[in-house]
Amino acid sequence: MNKKMLIGLCYGNGYGFQSGAWRMPGVDPKSYGDFDVVVKHAQAAERGKFHFVFLPDAFGRLADVENEPPAETLDVMLTLGAIARETSHIGLLATASTTFNEPYNVARQFKALDVMSHGRAGWNAVTSSSNDAAANYGVNIPSSEDRYGRAHEAVQLVQALWGSWGCDAWVHDQASGVFAKQGQIRPINLQGKYVGSRGPLYIPPSEQGQPIIVHAGGSHNAHELAGRFASVVIGAVFTIEDARAQREAFRAAAKCYGRDPDEIKFFAGIMTTITKDRRTALDRRIQLTENHFSQRIAYLQQMLGIPLYENPLDEPLTKEQLANARPSPYDPRSANALKIAKEGWSLRDIIAHGVIDYHPVIVGPGVEAADHMQEWFEAGACDGFWILPDVFHDGIDAFVDEVVPILQERGLFHKDYEGKTLRENLGVPDQYGIDPRLKK
Amino acid sequence: MNKKMLIGLCYGNGYGFQSGAWRMPGVDPKSYGDFDVVVKHAQAAERGKFHFVFLPDAFGRLADVENEPPAETLDVMLTLGAIARETSHIGLLATASTTFNEPYNVARQFKALDVMSHGRAGWNAVTSSSNDAAANYGVNIPSSEDRYGRAHEAVQLVQALWGSWGCDAWVHDQASGVFAKQGQIRPINLQGKYVGSRGPLYIPPSEQGQPIIVHAGGSHNAHELAGRFASVVIGAVFTIEDARAQREAFRAAAKCYGRDPDEIKFFAGIMTTITKDRRTALDRRIQLTENHFSQRIAYLQQMLGIPLYENPLDEPLTKEQLANARPSPYDPRSANALKIAKEGWSLRDIIAHGVIDYHPVIVGPGVEAADHMQEWFEAGACDGFWILPDVFHDGIDAFVDEVVPILQERGLFHKDYEGKTLRENLGVPDQYGIDPRLKK
Repeated sequence: MNKKMLIGLCYGNGYGFQSGAWRMPGVDPKSYGDFDVVVKHAQAAERGKFHFVFLPDAFGRLADVENEPPAETLDVMLTLGAIARETSHIGLLATASTTFNEPYNVARQFKALDVMSHGRAGWNAVTSSSNDAAANYGVNIPSSEDRYGRAHEAVQLVQALWGSWGCDAWVHDQASGVFAKQGQIRPINLQGKYVGSRGPLYIPPSEQGQPIIVHAGGSHNAHELAGRFASVVIGAVFTIEDARAQREAFRAAAKCYGRDPDEIKFFAGIMTTITKDRRTALDRRIQLTENHFSQRIAYLQQMLGIPLYENPLDEPLTKEQLANARPSPYDPRSANALKIAKEGWSLRDIIAHGVIDYHPVIVGPGVEAADHMQEWFEAGACDGFWILPDVFHDGIDAFVDEVVPILQERGLFHKDYEGKTLRENLGVPDQYGIDPRLKK
Repeated sequence: MNKKMLIGLCYGNGYGFQSGAWRMPGVDPKSYGDFDVVVKHAQAAERGKFHFVFLPDAFGRLADVENEPPAETLDVMLTLGAIARETSHIGLLATASTTFNEPYNVARQFKALDVMSHGRAGWNAVTSSSNDAAANYGVNIPSSEDRYGRAHEAVQLVQALWGSWGCDAWVHDQASGVFAKQGQIRPINLQGKYVGSRGPLYIPPSEQGQPIIVHAGGSHNAHELAGRFASVVIGAVFTIEDARAQREAFRAAAKCYGRDPDEIKFFAGIMTTITKDRRTALDRRIQLTENHFSQRIAYLQQMLGIPLYENPLDEPLTKEQLANARPSPYDPRSANALKIAKEGWSLRDIIAHGVIDYHPVIVGPGVEAADHMQEWFEAGACDGFWILPDVFHDGIDAFVDEVVPILQERGLFHKDYEGKTLRENLGVPDQYGIDPRLKK
């Protein structure tokens, strides 16, 4: 088997993806907004030959700011700009809403990042579905139909702006005095129902032509948008069956748009706490998540369909409870929760296994992460993984030092970057302007 | 006289403010988009203790891309982010349109730059008046009334978002687990005629609280907007009288809004070609502007009211021509053009003096720039200058080495930065949130 898996780092506030990360030993509590720290973390991922760093954007929702930092970085573009200057190969994926940004502004800023980074940028084009996001703009969230309608127009328009200079238009010939070939720089003159632009954009091609498109979401609308435009899909899936079905849906959508399904790479998330053994990892997660403990027991009750509020935290569930437990059909995480419970872990440890997190969780030595990733990858559940470390301070290094070498040894992960651009490293085709197959 | 002048660098495409800059010896023709070059230029300005680097934004108008690069940098925010990481004191002013940006997007990005740079950011809030700019967004340019109406709301809203965290809200206390004081982080709930936002913003205060506001423009509407909000005004003026009148209009407007007029700093532009003597400077400008030569002669005819198309380029104007010449009352540059012509310079050299440029032009040794700046500054024409060098490659260094020391010797310019933040260095007051005097 020759195909290798792809790996990206999901990055946020500078602390990590567990709410208590900012309080851990060695973590500077002022890391939020400290770009020295951001760059150090990205360099750690590049040392591990990660394909990209990926920045979500939840519009700074402050869920519980008394106890927890905002989820994301100060600003996705400034963060990736800083990383671009101080790394050389890692890809740079930022989220920007198609609903709350003008396409021309997205086009110029992502193309600038692409040129600045010598061809390493990608745009995670999302429609933003929350009323919290809309409230920042003084509006209500538009309907799904309008959001996706605008998204299709916006991505098309942005790609057209990216392609408004011909590939060879920029000649910058000092001797003849020709800066660029006027005839190869054309207005785009697109006017849709939602957005429009005359163009052209003023920015020449990058080393990879233009940024890649990324999408995150799992609905039918997401399949359509990603199938049409995306090279990378950031998935949210809990089981191999789930993941395989999602991946196939995106591949089928790509095919509908006349694309080779292999052009679209589906990524499954994993949240990682990598330590020397399971016990150390569980203790670390208990320390990281104590704020959410009682809330999570309430969830677990629903997932297993049994009352747990009187259970002692340090005891396993009773035989009777385990016999009565039924995984909830409404929560795809439930079967795994029951499996962990049946292994005899205490209630505290069941929760610490991350059975109520947003993605599959690895809590233990590196080989457990490697085994999980190999199993999913070989089952055709995904083309790669996006990693959400518990604490960035030491969690990225733990993955790089304890998981990556095993994957490399097993022939599952590249030992070095294949090329200089993100497209080369992901193995997605060159592109410039709107893909002619996509014109409708 | 104790008061010192302020100096900022106007920065653009990486080449310089003369159209031929990209073809000059030593200039890399691929500088457009080369951030190593951008950072080197900003570091040169910081060596000269410049107060800020200022980035205009003309939405990438490609006036004559066959012969000339786009006027501005790839992207103002990514450029300033890179400069922030590799300098320590110089201020960072970027232009962003109030018409073509959502206030929430401006608020987050500029505040992020401010935190990232440890309190050195400023927002040049302009309304964008051109149909070319509007065409990038698929719309017609709104009326001046609507543009300025939206601008007043947008700046208020952005400042409210900047102040949505109390000054001391961010405690990040690892021991107690208090990240921030929830009670000091408040939604802003502003809804105007044009824009609205609930907030709060998720970004804590910077070392200077929040970015300063800058405005560029000279109309009555500009006086109003700047008088209400701005700490810096980027002026476009050709004579001391012009400048003094503009400066007074801005100061009067500030007073109307209950502010101390000294809180608003008026900057006059100067375009510089600094060399060892006038002849060398003229030859350099002839080389830089040859593309525009015939067009400029046509302008000069109109400014002086005499036909020039048959004049030999290397001869002065005839006595008869000089006697018949009348400075055009419609062009404030005309009197200076006639003065230069009467000094006996050839037609080519008259043009090379920059009599048809967008700002007063210094063509000669550093002392000529210093004299000009001293005269204007002591006449109360401005609080400082924004410098537009002909070629960045050596033009910034020429100013720093040949003009700055003279100004320092004369006690007109500081010898080092007064503080760490832009507000400290400009001498403008601390601010956090909307200035309570400005609430209407």
